Amino acid sequence: MIRMVIKETAHYIPKRVVNNDDLTMYMDTSDEWIKTRTGIENRHIVTSENTSDLAIKVAQTLLIKSNVSAEQISFIIVATMSPDYTTPSVAAQVQGALQASNAFAFDVNAACSGFTYALSIANRMLSKPSQYGIVVGAEVLSKLVDWQDRTTAVLFGDGAGGVLIQGQAEGNQQVLAEDLVTLGEKSNSLKAGYRLNENIFSDKNDTQTGYFEMVGRDIYAFATREVPKSIKRALARANLTVNDIDKFVIHQANGRIIEKLAKELGLAKTLFPTNVAKYGNTSAASIPILLDELVQANEITIGDTIVMVGFGGGLTVGTMIIKY
Amino acid sequence: MIRMVIKETAHYIPKRVVNNDDLTMYMDTSDEWIKTRTGIENRHIVTSENTSDLAIKVAQTLLIKSNVSAEQISFIIVATMSPDYTTPSVAAQVQGALQASNAFAFDVNAACSGFTYALSIANRMLSKPSQYGIVVGAEVLSKLVDWQDRTTAVLFGDGAGGVLIQGQAEGNQQVLAEDLVTLGEKSNSLKAGYRLNENIFSDKNDTQTGYFEMVGRDIYAFATREVPKSIKRALARANLTVNDIDKFVIHQANGRIIEKLAKELGLAKTLFPTNVAKYGNTSAASIPILLDELVQANEITIGDTIVMVGFGGGLTVGTMIIKY
Repeated sequence: MIRMVIKETAHYIPKRVVNNDDLTMYMDTSDEWIKTRTGIENRHIVTSENTSDLAIKVAQTLLIKSNVSAEQISFIIVATMSPDYTTPSVAAQVQGALQASNAFAFDVNAACSGFTYALSIANRMLSKPSQYGIVVGAEVLSKLVDWQDRTTAVLFGDGAGGVLIQGQAEGNQQVLAEDLVTLGEKSNSLKAGYRLNENIFSDKNDTQTGYFEMVGRDIYAFATREVPKSIKRALARANLTVNDIDKFVIHQANGRIIEKLAKELGLAKTLFPTNVAKYGNTSAASIPILLDELVQANEITIGDTIVMVGFGGGLTVGTMIIKY
Repeated sequence: MIRMVIKETAHYIPKRVVNNDDLTMYMDTSDEWIKTRTGIENRHIVTSENTSDLAIKVAQTLLIKSNVSAEQISFIIVATMSPDYTTPSVAAQVQGALQASNAFAFDVNAACSGFTYALSIANRMLSKPSQYGIVVGAEVLSKLVDWQDRTTAVLFGDGAGGVLIQGQAEGNQQVLAEDLVTLGEKSNSLKAGYRLNENIFSDKNDTQTGYFEMVGRDIYAFATREVPKSIKRALARANLTVNDIDKFVIHQANGRIIEKLAKELGLAKTLFPTNVAKYGNTSAASIPILLDELVQANEITIGDTIVMVGFGGGLTVGTMIIKY
């Protein structure tokens, strides 16, 4: 059986920085309030780019850094909850921009768990050791934010990250275990991206907006309860314990959630690197952005055992344990 | 290696029928014009349901018909380009409604090729013979249609279809070959579902709508050129010829495209069943709707070799050859 190894990582963040003080011009909030409750200081917001622009930059960087040609790519998967269009997919736009003429492409949507879900799919899509695939998490959440709503507008940012993977014969595989969970009965706790149906035959008097609606308390309770359980299930499958893990690369939803997760697992905070202060919550993009930063800083190196966990809308959790 | 067999099929169509004459009240068109160019006579349009409602009906029917319990389902994949939200995914909503407590769930977007792409993914997600998965194609395209635009409004309809699959040891597998293709450089030929970015930091003066925009001539040329090529590649991989195929279950985009495909492949039109007259183009839903109708009518029976082909936005083509 052929399974993946991560050959290269990359990320791209739009230039415009919006700090907490900037937000006080538009809503009743403060730097201290935001920092204390979320750990977020800045987020980057697009001014004219869209999700495909961010994803294309990441995919181009992956090819350049790895010296792999576009024709060698067999598939492109983009995890996103904020695509430019519902057709074409962001992945198809990336495929076109790269001229990756041998790659098929599709988007996956599992919200903030999207990157780990997409990586789990990608791990199964390879059939030859020579094959390459690209998996990108890319979000322009700024278009899904109600910039009058201080309960959600302070949380989210735009960005993209991704990995180039290659097929390897069994035994050299990187994925030691995974655990994907969905709790759809709680799907109303986090909603975004609604589209009104204005068809002329509709008898619906529908006023729902497309903006984020979140029951923050529910998400906090869900994440701090379900993420440790998912990590423990994946560790058991891999015959590992928390002490075998070199780094936890956790979805950057909120600094307080990440601190609580370290505590729940009885581990030092230093094992849970974060960049939420710089970028806010970038949903499906947060894990590959952080992964690339850690790899670039040599904080993750070959041989390390890492846990990646996405969690959020759906509600969903996606855990992967990888021997880097 | 574990691969899938299709155990059950189901579909659900919203009640409200809109025929070509009904459309003449809203745009300058005629029954004859639409029928001649597209083969479409009716489409069904939701009045108050959304995409998740349609998908849930299909998934519930699959469980009832197969006598499989919700807890036995390992994953739910929904192919859609018209989700209720961008989070939660339609698949998460289905998972919640079914109380499929052991299933993870995500959406896949490859537009009109979505169902065959999702089936290709699902075929790889099974790891045990006892495992079940649900794959649904569900669309409410009526929310993406500009009901003033007679070039696109006449084409699309709402609906959902799906399959229950089960893992089987190699040798009993149903998928004989597949061919997935993306031509992202032509992504502008078919667009829908754009969302304006109204973030307060944007310097963009953006007026693009969320409605379908299609260069019909490009899509016709693409489909009639690329679909036969994809079918021939898949047949070659399975060591089959067109004469080994009992039924071609083709995405119901347009009656004229389907007739042209039969001609290109040198085959009788009767091998290419259609229901486009009744439902119009339902994107990712069209193949599973047609498949279920053919299975219910005993026009596809155990042992038949069938070709399923999705094609459309991306642009994408997805071909699967299945020993039913």
